[in-house]
Order: sequence, then C-alpha cells, then structure tokens
Amino acid sequence: MEKITSRSNEKIKYAVRLGESASLRKEAGEFFLEGARLCFDAAQTGIEIKQAFFTAKAMWKYEDYVKEITERCAECYEIGAEVSQKLSDTENAQGVFCICSMKPKSEKVSLNPNGKYIALENLQDPSNLGAVCRSVEAIGLDGLIVSGGCDIYNPKALRAAMGSSLRMDVTVCDDLGEILDLAHSLGMQTLASVPKNTATDIRRVSMEGGVICCVGNEGNGLSEKTIGQCTKQVVIPMSGRAESFNASAAAAILAWELKR
Amino acid sequence: MEKITSRSNEKIKYAVRLGESASLRKEAGEFFLEGARLCFDAAQTGIEIKQAFFTAKAMWKYEDYVKEITERCAECYEIGAEVSQKLSDTENAQGVFCICSMKPKSEKVSLNPNGKYIALENLQDPSNLGAVCRSVEAIGLDGLIVSGGCDIYNPKALRAAMGSSLRMDVTVCDDLGEILDLAHSLGMQTLASVPKNTATDIRRVSMEGGVICCVGNEGNGLSEKTIGQCTKQVVIPMSGRAESFNASAAAAILAWELKR
Repeated sequence: MEKITSRSNEKIKYAVRLGESASLRKEAGEFFLEGARLCFDAAQTGIEIKQAFFTAKAMWKYEDYVKEITERCAECYEIGAEVSQKLSDTENAQGVFCICSMKPKSEKVSLNPNGKYIALENLQDPSNLGAVCRSVEAIGLDGLIVSGGCDIYNPKALRAAMGSSLRMDVTVCDDLGEILDLAHSLGMQTLASVPKNTATDIRRVSMEGGVICCVGNEGNGLSEKTIGQCTKQVVIPMSGRAESFNASAAAAILAWELKR
Repeated sequence: MEKITSRSNEKIKYAVRLGESASLRKEAGEFFLEGARLCFDAAQTGIEIKQAFFTAKAMWKYEDYVKEITERCAECYEIGAEVSQKLSDTENAQGVFCICSMKPKSEKVSLNPNGKYIALENLQDPSNLGAVCRSVEAIGLDGLIVSGGCDIYNPKALRAAMGSSLRMDVTVCDDLGEILDLAHSLGMQTLASVPKNTATDIRRVSMEGGVICCVGNEGNGLSEKTIGQCTKQVVIPMSGRAESFNASAAAAILAWELKR
C-alpha cells in the first residue's frame, strides 16, 4: 500500500476540499466520509469507494472494518498521523477515511403509492438532517425526500446519520413541488407540518394509504408554496409557552405518527 | 447608561468566562445568556438578571425586548460592537447579553405522583439537551429531571432550548437513584429506555398514574445502575439496520408516548 506522509499531497488536499465544499461535492458527484464504522457501512451498503486512507494504527485497531473496505476499493493508501489529523473533522480521529461516489440520481422519481415518507424542505443544520435520517430509517418509513438546501453528504450530516442516509432510499430534489404533484397523481395524502395549534392535530389524521409529511426549515418553517400545495396542514399540539419543536424532534414525532 | 468599549474590561472578561466554564457557573450560581429574545424571555419568566449588556444598535432594533430587560435589571451597560463580538458565540451577534442567577436549588426534590417526566442521564451534547427541554415543554410534561453531566446552563444548550429550560420545572440532581427511589415510594412507574428490541414496546406500556422515563447518554445509553433500578425496560421498536435513535429524537418520541 502506497504511503502518504505529506499533508500537502494533492489527494489529501482534494479530500479536505470535498469535505468542506458542497458545490465541489455536487460537481464531482463524490463525497468524503470519515470513521471506521461509517466507511465500513458504506462499503457493505454497496456505495462505490473510490479511494480509502488508513493510518497504520487504524489498520490493526479496526482490522475487520478495514478489510471489508480494502476489498471493495482499488485505491487504498496508508497515511501518517499528521495527515489523518488534517483530514479529520473530530478531535480523536480514528484514522479511517474514504472518498465515495454519490448514489446515482434516478432519472425519474418513484414513490410507493402506499408508502409513508418524510419530506424535508431547506433544513439548515446538518446535525438535524442526520438525526432525521436516523429516525426515518429506525421507524421504518419507506423513504426520505430532501429538497433545496438539505445536503445529506455534508460530513456532519453523514456522521449524525450514522450510516442511515447511505442505506436508506433518499430522494434528493430541487423542487418539492414536483414530488407533491406526483404524490397527488398517485392518490397520496400530503401533509404540511406547521407550528399552529389551529391546524389539524396530527393524531386525528388517518394514515391509511400513502402519505408524505413535509417538515420545514428551522427558522422559517415550510415555504408558503409548499404549504399551499399540500392537502392538509397538521400540527403536533403544543402546551405552555413553547412555540415550536426542534426540527429533528418534530420530524421524529411525525414519522412515528405516520407509522402508528 | 455606562458605556464599555474595552474588550479587556473585567466585567466582559467575567461574562466570557461564565459562558465557557461550567465549573465557574456552578461556583458562582450564575450563567451567561445571549440573544434578544432569550434575555427577554428570562426577564419575563422572573429569572434574576444581574447585569445586562446592549449595543447601541440593539437598543433600537430590539427596543421592546431591551425595555423589558432594563426594567428588571439594575446594572445595564452599553457596549461597543467589538465588545459584542467578543461576548458572542454566534457569527451574527444581536448585541444583547445578560448575566443571570441560576434558579435556586430546592432543598428537597418534589415530584407530582401523577406527573409525567423525562429524566436525562449524562446527556453530553448541549444541542441535544436543549432540544429535549423544548420537546418536554411543548408536549406539556410535568417536568424534566437531569443528572450528572447535563448542563442546562451551557450557552449552546440555552440557545437550543429557546427559553424552555428557564420556564420549565427542571430538577438538577447529582444522582438519579435518589429521584427513582422517591418516585417508587410515591407509587410511580419508572421506565429505562434501551435500544434493544427485546424490551417492552413503549406503545404497550400503560401510562396511567405517574411515570418517569429515563434516557441515557448518546454513546453509552443509560448506566447499568439506572437500568437496574427502573421498574421496566422499554424500547422504541426499530426497523432496518438502525441501531438507535439520536438521543433528542428518542426523548421526543418517548415524551409524546408519555402523554398519549
């Protein structure tokens, strides 16, 4: 295995930029992944691993994980501790990193007409985004739809998702409107989650058939356009002086209700 | 109003340290709060505000909030923009800051024997902690119990809680064991949330009477001691290859089920 000891190696500089830049990720169709378990999960899930980087320590400490990764990656490098530190986003780097291909975007979005979905519009906080991926997978919904600013390949979002965003059916779209149109043509219900106690109590909504429940941005909620397009406005009823939930807490409760 | 223009002013240096150091907060019985709405909420809730700091811009931009704060605080200072930047934890500081007294710890913990509570053990991430406070208030539980490393006065936790931790009944304790003993003596049910599909499905637990549901640390879950002390182990059933929920998502679903 070739060894990289210089922090200014071109491959290392590219990996760092890939972690930092959403536009580079989009342009290259690649993303950067850190962590023994997460890289192992990606390999197992069938994500294409283009390059992998391991410290000598990681190769014995995470032997089984590293074995799986190297078997599925043609271009593996040993890296020095200083290089690992440069690549890492965390204080205690495990010394396992990969550059992966994004899952190919399907030409045509497909929805299960009886499926249950959460759709996120412009969620800003990558930790929230990752937490929602985790909830949606754990609760067993049919998939997650993300639009606009939701970047599931952001390193913080990937870490918070603990592999769920790589395993799950995630539909990335520019415009939620098209998906909602498709859902309506399939006879699905579309719900707009709003923090207004005048909307329909989520517990009173029938969840028969297919349902997409839309959750908005942390600060501003859903756009007027999306609210207007959905068949119903729903609320998680709130007590006290609370005015809203954290977006990932709201999404968890809504996903839970979708599967009730 | 006296004006502070030097970033090395002793009051400013103290405020910064108070935001950074959990041990100083504990020793002084004071905490540092940032943000126009949050400081206003604290004032309205009856939290004692010992000192307040405003930029000139904030005094007109957040006039109503600042008025409420100054009416309840004897020691107000105008600060320059550079001082505001030093005090702030965010990129776009609003220019409103307070030093507040922690709520006095009650000598004796009191529980409503028919109340519903979430208890958090050693939650590490302040954003998770704040999000749980917000969920618990919005869902309308009777209170939140936090033990060990949960620092509700951490600035990130305060921001994520959006005022809920100041408004709500939060019991801070060193040892969850004493609270669980008290709960049992009052005939309350105590639930240990564990990520094991062999535990009792949370949907099958009767929520009659008083219930405390314990949620553990992000990485390690609840301690063996706490699990052993609770009357029942419960789980939010999980599908797919997910192994657990984000702690604040789990707490949101559990709080929601407590009030079902």
